[in-house]
Amino acid sequence: MSLSAFTSRYLPALEAEMQAVVTAPAPEVHDLYGYLRYHLGWIDEHFQPRRGRTGKRIRPVLCLLSCEACGGDWEQALPAAAAVELLHNFSLIHDDIEDHDATRRGRPTVWALWGVPQAINAGDALFILAHIALLRLSARGIPAETVTAALRIFDHACLRLTEGQFMDIRFEQEEEVSLEDYLSMIEGKTAALLSAACELGALVAGVPPDQQERLRAFGRHLGLAFQIQDDILGIWGDPEKTGKPVGSDLRSRKKTLPILHGLRHDPALRALLAQPTLGEEEIGQAIQRLEAAGSRAFAEEQARRHIDQALAVLKAADLRPPAAPALHDLTLSLMGRTR
Amino acid sequence: MSLSAFTSRYLPALEAEMQAVVTAPAPEVHDLYGYLRYHLGWIDEHFQPRRGRTGKRIRPVLCLLSCEACGGDWEQALPAAAAVELLHNFSLIHDDIEDHDATRRGRPTVWALWGVPQAINAGDALFILAHIALLRLSARGIPAETVTAALRIFDHACLRLTEGQFMDIRFEQEEEVSLEDYLSMIEGKTAALLSAACELGALVAGVPPDQQERLRAFGRHLGLAFQIQDDILGIWGDPEKTGKPVGSDLRSRKKTLPILHGLRHDPALRALLAQPTLGEEEIGQAIQRLEAAGSRAFAEEQARRHIDQALAVLKAADLRPPAAPALHDLTLSLMGRTR
Repeated sequence: MSLSAFTSRYLPALEAEMQAVVTAPAPEVHDLYGYLRYHLGWIDEHFQPRRGRTGKRIRPVLCLLSCEACGGDWEQALPAAAAVELLHNFSLIHDDIEDHDATRRGRPTVWALWGVPQAINAGDALFILAHIALLRLSARGIPAETVTAALRIFDHACLRLTEGQFMDIRFEQEEEVSLEDYLSMIEGKTAALLSAACELGALVAGVPPDQQERLRAFGRHLGLAFQIQDDILGIWGDPEKTGKPVGSDLRSRKKTLPILHGLRHDPALRALLAQPTLGEEEIGQAIQRLEAAGSRAFAEEQARRHIDQALAVLKAADLRPPAAPALHDLTLSLMGRTR
Repeated sequence: MSLSAFTSRYLPALEAEMQAVVTAPAPEVHDLYGYLRYHLGWIDEHFQPRRGRTGKRIRPVLCLLSCEACGGDWEQALPAAAAVELLHNFSLIHDDIEDHDATRRGRPTVWALWGVPQAINAGDALFILAHIALLRLSARGIPAETVTAALRIFDHACLRLTEGQFMDIRFEQEEEVSLEDYLSMIEGKTAALLSAACELGALVAGVPPDQQERLRAFGRHLGLAFQIQDDILGIWGDPEKTGKPVGSDLRSRKKTLPILHGLRHDPALRALLAQPTLGEEEIGQAIQRLEAAGSRAFAEEQARRHIDQALAVLKAADLRPPAAPALHDLTLSLMGRTR
């Protein structure tokens, strides 16, 4: 059974689970839920139904595959999968305000349409709805002890996510960011939630703690590789595919892994990026300098190492087919690799 | 045992419980927790220890008194009391951004000191720490089934709180706000959390559902009365005591209960408040018109009715001394009454 066959089976049930949670309980808050349903890709800005890009739903798919690969019933893990995806989307709503990003997935962001105050409230509502989604594990027959264990895993990931976002914003104002601080930031901002997604799947499947720990470690390495790959695409990505201009992260002076490497190894790059405005020419020069300093190769090597570690943990976990090979394929596909 | 004797006993343990949760786990996020500890009143803006106003801690005191009055051990309810107070403070951090309020309790607000993006992150962190605080019920020997029940009550209150905040912001742009919508807004924004505080105390004490329901109803009426009283003080409060100018809510054109009553009964007030700028003279005229329209008396009557209902439920619950009379005193003291 292929990865896409799993995804086709999971997604309708996942969307239904999320829709059941993100539904206005009363007419006077209809619009608040409208902002959320818009952000989740179900309706347009006039609150009319639409079918379009909803995001890749990678995190919930990881959660459900992890559950099945551990011998569990994936439908029992649907509340956890929904919670993880809703939490991810909460963080996007608040991040878009913080980064002043006016578009996402080709559409205006929530704050751009309805203002910052209501976008803060929309994010807060989605944050709590993610928790309410997770509590629905009880309705699927999961014992209370397991539900509280799931909440502990989930809350810890929420906290690390927010801490990572705090560090990311702080780095924008700092001259020097160490590689250690960068890694700590992406551990929180990206790896914590992918890691929790896999661990929750294993928890619901009821495997012993050491196996849960393997799934957690798998998700963590996958998350780190995923973020570093995203950093690479933020400079060298195809604008057609990323929807962002060439050298996007250089323009916004983000402190991503290849840029931190370049700044450390090439003083001329530092001077170049310190200029008040960066035009096409400066961006082109900066990309050349990064290549020459080996910054792209360095980042690619780091991503590859985490992928290799993820695959090694996956092998050690000795998971069940057909979900186990699908997890393997998902890992490779996230890196744009096929084998 | 007097109310103040209870408060003196509770507060040190409550602050210790909150401090245990709001502590930086690693140096790279030290400042994020610094923002929270500043907001909670424990440190100054240079992160140096201070002793000062921390807010009244009404919600956790209600939670602990409810637990004791139901025959429970108040120390077992400390995680719930801490959670309720942390959640209240999360909402203040985000509300201050949304309302563009630069001071609170005589000090600069978090966004005024550290900017909007980091204030959003600080609020998000406190939101999740409130949940982590509640999960500490397990460490005090509360069974997992009760912990998940507590989370359900708490999450529902969180959601109602955010919905109330959404409505409050929306009302600013609306010409007409009905009394029903106003009541729905304060049910969420104020009553939901006071109600949850009392219900959680009863839940931890282990009383039957009908008794939990009485405590919930008590907290709800108290919350509604508390908000209406706050609305009255927002116009007629002593600037020395409230720290706000005379007629504060009129200046900011808030849609509070007395103002909604006045707008409905006096067309001249509507014209007055529609003026582009409101000076001392217009504020004075508006206050006179509100008095003449009976808007103050109307609001006072509404607050009194909810207080009477709160006291009636308290009586019907037949709670234990000495905590029961302290709850009675707290109810009266919130209204500035002594009997």
